[in-house]
Parts: sequence; C-alpha cells; structure tokens
Amino acid sequence: MIRSILLLLAFCPLFTVAQTDSIAIRKIFTTALTQGDCYENLRQLTKISGRISGSSQAEKAVQWAKQRMTDLGFDSVYLQECMVPKWVRGEKEVASIYVNGKKTAVPVCALGGSIGTGTKGIEAQVVEVKNFSELEALGEAKLKGRIVFYNRPMDDNDIYPFESYGKAVDQRWAGASEAAKYGASGVIVRSMTHARDDHPHTGAMEYADHARMIPAVAISTNGADLLSAQLKKDPSTKAYFRTTCETLPDVKSNNVIGEIHGTSDRKKVIVVGGHLDAWDNGEGAHDDGAGCVQAMEVLSIFKKAGIKPAHTIRAVMFMNEESLGRGAEKYAEEVKRTNEKHLAAIESDAGGFSPRGFAMEGPEMHCAKVRSWKPLFEPYGVYDFGRRGAGADVEPLTKQNILAMELIPDGQRYFDYHHAATDVFANINKRELEMGAAAMASLVFMIDSHPFE
Amino acid sequence: MIRSILLLLAFCPLFTVAQTDSIAIRKIFTTALTQGDCYENLRQLTKISGRISGSSQAEKAVQWAKQRMTDLGFDSVYLQECMVPKWVRGEKEVASIYVNGKKTAVPVCALGGSIGTGTKGIEAQVVEVKNFSELEALGEAKLKGRIVFYNRPMDDNDIYPFESYGKAVDQRWAGASEAAKYGASGVIVRSMTHARDDHPHTGAMEYADHARMIPAVAISTNGADLLSAQLKKDPSTKAYFRTTCETLPDVKSNNVIGEIHGTSDRKKVIVVGGHLDAWDNGEGAHDDGAGCVQAMEVLSIFKKAGIKPAHTIRAVMFMNEESLGRGAEKYAEEVKRTNEKHLAAIESDAGGFSPRGFAMEGPEMHCAKVRSWKPLFEPYGVYDFGRRGAGADVEPLTKQNILAMELIPDGQRYFDYHHAATDVFANINKRELEMGAAAMASLVFMIDSHPFE
Repeated sequence: MIRSILLLLAFCPLFTVAQTDSIAIRKIFTTALTQGDCYENLRQLTKISGRISGSSQAEKAVQWAKQRMTDLGFDSVYLQECMVPKWVRGEKEVASIYVNGKKTAVPVCALGGSIGTGTKGIEAQVVEVKNFSELEALGEAKLKGRIVFYNRPMDDNDIYPFESYGKAVDQRWAGASEAAKYGASGVIVRSMTHARDDHPHTGAMEYADHARMIPAVAISTNGADLLSAQLKKDPSTKAYFRTTCETLPDVKSNNVIGEIHGTSDRKKVIVVGGHLDAWDNGEGAHDDGAGCVQAMEVLSIFKKAGIKPAHTIRAVMFMNEESLGRGAEKYAEEVKRTNEKHLAAIESDAGGFSPRGFAMEGPEMHCAKVRSWKPLFEPYGVYDFGRRGAGADVEPLTKQNILAMELIPDGQRYFDYHHAATDVFANINKRELEMGAAAMASLVFMIDSHPFE
Repeated sequence: MIRSILLLLAFCPLFTVAQTDSIAIRKIFTTALTQGDCYENLRQLTKISGRISGSSQAEKAVQWAKQRMTDLGFDSVYLQECMVPKWVRGEKEVASIYVNGKKTAVPVCALGGSIGTGTKGIEAQVVEVKNFSELEALGEAKLKGRIVFYNRPMDDNDIYPFESYGKAVDQRWAGASEAAKYGASGVIVRSMTHARDDHPHTGAMEYADHARMIPAVAISTNGADLLSAQLKKDPSTKAYFRTTCETLPDVKSNNVIGEIHGTSDRKKVIVVGGHLDAWDNGEGAHDDGAGCVQAMEVLSIFKKAGIKPAHTIRAVMFMNEESLGRGAEKYAEEVKRTNEKHLAAIESDAGGFSPRGFAMEGPEMHCAKVRSWKPLFEPYGVYDFGRRGAGADVEPLTKQNILAMELIPDGQRYFDYHHAATDVFANINKRELEMGAAAMASLVFMIDSHPFE
C-alpha cells in the first residue's frame, strides 16, 4: 500500500514541484552559507553606531545602504522620503541613590522621547511600584513630588521572551504619564531584559495627550535590584538623576529601497525588510542592523544563485521603527496611493539569531498556504509557523489585506542586547545571521513560485 | 464531527494522560526558569578551569561535584573510580612562520595526546594538504622531514555543524600518524571551527599502533589562512613550533554520581549525564560544564517541583570523555557486571544552547516511543527527534540494548567555542542553559511515567 502511494507520488506533478522547491531552497541555503555577504555588510553598517532617527548617523546609514545596494548590482535603488522625530540624548546621564546613607552611582539612560531634568537634575524620595494599579492605590498623597520606580521584572517563566517583553513594556512606554497623574516628579524604570547586569536598556516612551511631562530613565537590572533592596531597608530612600535630552523639530529622512525586477510580473512586489534606525547606546547590530543586511542578502542570494524571480523582490530599510514608525507609515501610504500589488511583506526585526520560523498576520488563506510549506523548511530547523504577528514596519500593510510576516529567530538571548550597549557586532554569529537570511529568501522564493491567487 | 471527536478525546484515558504529562512538563520548565540553580552551579564549576583528565583541577572538580550534589540534598552521592590518562601540556606553545621572509608568530596549541617537540622545537619546510589521499600522492619523496599542514576547513555548507566537524576531524585525530608514514617531522592542523579568528582549538589525537610518533599542533583559522596564502607565494616556506607536552603514567580518577531514589521501582535507573573533564585552554563551560550542571539540575527540578519519580534518576558526571572515554567505559562495565536495569541514558554534551531536540540510538521500539512524545515538547521549541546518535559517554550502553540519547541544542555557534580559550562562562546564556535542563528533565519524566516494556 505504502509503496503504491509512493510510486503514485513519484509521478504526480505535485511531487515534482515540491522536489524542485526543495532543491531550490537547498541552493539558497548553500549560497547564503558559502557566498554570504551579510556578515561583512553588518560589520560596515554597525561602524555607523548611534543611528537614532533624525541624527547625522542615521543619515550616514541611509547613504551607506543606498550605496551598498547599488554596489550589489540591484536593478533599482532609491530613497523614499519621510519626516521623522529628532530626539537627542544630550550629555551622558548621571544617577545616584543613597545606599545606607552613602551616595552610590547607578547606571541609567534616558528613555527615547523623554524630556530632560534640566541641568541641575532632580532628587526626590523614591516610591517603588509594580504596576499602574499600585500607583492608583497610592494616589497623590503618597506620590506627589516623588520619583516613581517601576520595578516589575520581565517574567522569567515565559518560554518566548517577546511575551515577557509585551507584558512588561507598559512601564517604559506609559509609565511617565501614569505617574504624572499623581504629581510624581520623574520615573525610573527597570530595564526590559531577563539579564541581571549593569547595562541600562533604553527604548521609546510616549507622553499621553495633555499629560504633564516628567523625565524618565531606565535603570540597569542590577541597579534596580540595589534600589529595591535599599527601599526595603529604608522606605525614605532618595534618588537623583540628571538628563539633558530633548525633542527638536521633525526632520527629513528616508526609507532606503532596493529591487530586483520580476521577469514576468514585475508590477507585483514581495517585500523583505528591516529598520535602519537604532538606539544610540549600542551599535544596533541585532536591532536591527541584522534585519537590514538580511533583507539585502535575500536579493543578493537570488542574484548569486541565478534564480530569476517572476515578481519584483524589494528590500526596504525602514526609518524610525524605534519611536513613531514614520517610515513604515509612509511606505504603507505609498502602497495605498499607488495601489501597488503586494504579494507579501516579511520583516526581520527580532535579532540575527538562528531562525526557527515565521509569524504571520493577514488573509487566512494566505497564512494557511505558507504554513503548508513547513515541511520544506524543517530540514533547516525552521519549523515554527504557528505564531500570529508581523514586524512593526510591515504590520501596517495588513490593513490593505496584505500578508505580513516576521522572521522568528531563537529569542532566548535577544533581550540581553536589546536597546543596550551590548547590542554590538561582536555579539553576532555569522552562520546564525546567514541562516536567517536564507530562511527569508526561501520563503520569498516559495511565494514568488506559488503566488497567492 | 470535530466537536464529537473532541468530546470523545476529553473523556478518554489517553487524553487525560497526555494532559497530565503536559501539565507536569510545564511545571518542569517553570521550575527550571524561575528557581534554577544550574547557571550559578556552572559559574562555580568553571572557576575550576583546566579540568583535563588526571590534573589537580579535574580532581578539584570531582570534589566540587560530589559536595555540590550532597548540598543539593540528593539521596545518595558517590564516586566511581577509574584510571585515566594523564597528558600535560607543559609550557605555552610557540610557533612562527616566515611571511615574506619575516618571522611571524602564529597562535597554536598542542593536540591532546601529542608528544612534544623537545625544548628546541622543530623547524622545517611546510607542505599543505587537504586530506590523506593528497598525502599519499605526495609520498615520502616530498614529505620526508617536512611539516605537514592539514588545511581542510570545516564545511560551511552543512546545516548541522556537527556534521562538518565529523567530516573534518580525521585531520586532527589521525593526521600525525598518517604523515609519519611518509617521514614527516610534525603536523600543523587547521582548527576545527567555522569561525575565522586567532584562537587555536585543541582536542584529542591518537597515534596508530606501532606508528612513529611526531608532534602535532592546532593552528588558529586566521593563522592557517596566513600560512596557506604564504605557501601559495612561496612553496618553500618554513614553519617553526615548540611544544613540551608529554604523557605521564595513568592515574586514578572518578566518575561522580548523584541519585534520587525511585519510589516504586528503585532498582531501575534513568541516567542523565555530562562530562567533568575539559580541555585546559578555556573554562570548559559549553564543553561540558553545561552538561554536568544540567544533569544535576534534572534531579534538582524533580525535588523542587515535588515530582517523585517511580524509578531512580541518576546524574553521572563522567571523567575523561575528551580523550579515551575511560569514565564511560567504566560506567558501562559496572552496569554489565551488576546487571543493573537501565531504562535510558541521556547526555548533554553539545553545548549549553537553546534546546531543539534529542538524538537517539538503541532499541527501535523505544526510539519510536520517545518520538511519539514530540507534541508535548514542541511548545518549548524542542521538535527535533529524528536524529540518530548518542552522547559519547552513554553510547557504550547501547551495546547492552539500552536506549542512549543526546540533547541537541542549537549548534550554529558551538564550534566557535569548542576546545578553545573562548569556551568560558561569559559565553553561556542563563535561559538557554535552563531550557536545556528542563528539556532533559521533561524527557526523564516521560520515561519514568511511561517506562518501556
């Protein structure tokens, strides 16, 4: 019985297609692992550290990406202008707490978008809370003039660290405005990481409409543990911090786009992307230099492997993912305005680690088709096609009924580096980065070869 | 239709068992991730660096492991004596090559088991080969008195780096005796790693019976590339190296064993293990401090989670995996001599990275049963149950028809660290280590709860 089924399969067109696909995917991985450029490209890009939106470094990165894709011989390379916020960190942040009466320095950094404290800094008694309900329970009587210290750690119990991040990040994003409601003078937020170390992790925050603006900093997890221990001993413990960050008027910036043109259906597009902007305390290696060079690599792999796509493959290096997502907004607007047909958009923005799968969001029929390809990816350790979600830069496209996806790499160590001084090229593994690029290229190949109706 | 099947499943015993299992496995992961000791245990163990078989550091590690398992409150902790080889590295190795006529130092280290060069070192013209066939083709005329340079890189094209290692390691293991056949005076072997850097990777070599013994060193991959480039320019290029390593008489050492006793069938055993010995140039963190602390952690997890196993769970820290496997040999002999019933043996010896699956070797019915549990492991990213193979220390048990397995972690960066100065605690991620221990504990739980007939 089994033998006759196998014989049948061997001569049926379906099987032939799958075999062709599996041979092409093996070729894609071979190209990535033996002729890959993405690791050396990332070495170059990360030399431009501090690529925060609106900065001269971000502009340098735009020029670098444009030049690099031109040098790689893509069919067209161009910029897509967008306005971005310009927040500047100012002088190196300073903070201290009183431990057993002794002033002790602790590592902090301003949150992106925060106002500064003024040159004198602020000093006040600290009140530790775990969440906004505790804040409400304490009320203005206990919080007025105080520094609120948000200290709810990322949950170690989650298997998938992005879940822990999602559950904890409201403290960073909305903590200042919530505390301001009760008259607090500033906030200190525990860094969003599973690691216990001395690196503060920055990241975006936002002031609610009409809220009083108070300054916000992240403190390293070791610093947070020290402060918390001290508060247990002495609830009247004071902290001091000084930041000179500020938000300047919006400036012009760009998404950077490279394409190889489709041979038979050039007007239909498959997008691969990452974001060029990065926080300024590290080199933006995993977040998201990796995604940028992987997106370029997808196009390079097609060229090097001699695979001519039917549809246009477009690499988009988005600008300003880290705060307001203006590049993503602009891109989606242009797609809508020109009514340009997109088959799918895949972002890599979860680190340059070993790939494990793809999350997706969009028309269920399209998701189901992608999931049916799982057996072709399993030999490469890419097996996880069950997650919902899409990269922040491609997610806006789902409103236009476009399938948006995100590469899911192994995530256990991502938040050791995320938005911290440790997010450097030295913490990238060449093979892991290449495997991720190959997984993306393979998915693009499948969509290109078996497009959705 | 679907609904009636689900209803049926909800009330059938099979479903109940699976649900109980899945709850227990979640509890195991929670225990590992929120109350884990293995990371701190590894910090302690790796402070005893240079745990090469027969060394005082290996003896310290034996005492540490015994004390640590006693402190962890296991039901019994004991040593199992075995004789081990004692090879000592001697003075720091020195090597140089002539690059454009200029003497240039290159990083090398002696291979484990090699003889030394004598205090003067050896200098000779270098002949580069890729394999033993090239050696044979060159013959004595071109090799007598020369230094043979084995320079076949690990294949970047393999998806699973252990395959590349398996294909390249004959150069290190047998290269000296093969070259000695043709009168060579010494060998330099390209380090077994995908990385391109300045760290030489040591590892065991063996002289064939009755072969003339010549000294062997590993050279860093950057050093190998430099030497190869120079040989292309000038085929008469000479190299010099000096090693004072030597093999002393065998000494007594020990496997270290800890147990928690089975509540209903104590005489049947499930083994988890790693190996205590490690090469002396790093801290033996991934290879294989990780496996040792994960084996301990499996027992700790059972205790902390309040799971009372029916069978005895035994952690074995094997001695001398890195050269002759004397600890493993001794353990298997004792199992045979006492006819002790083993349900299975699982080793972790492929690095403390994010787990992806288990390789296995043994009775096919047992392997099939383990594979059927895959759906219970998939929520934890542990999906790969299709590989054959077992850890080197448990593999000898397969001769007694015992199922032997090995934890398969993500392997892309393993050979960056393997047998090199970079194999240090700082390159271990806490969550990845804990996830591996939890995967092992979950598999032990399943075998204990559903023992093979």
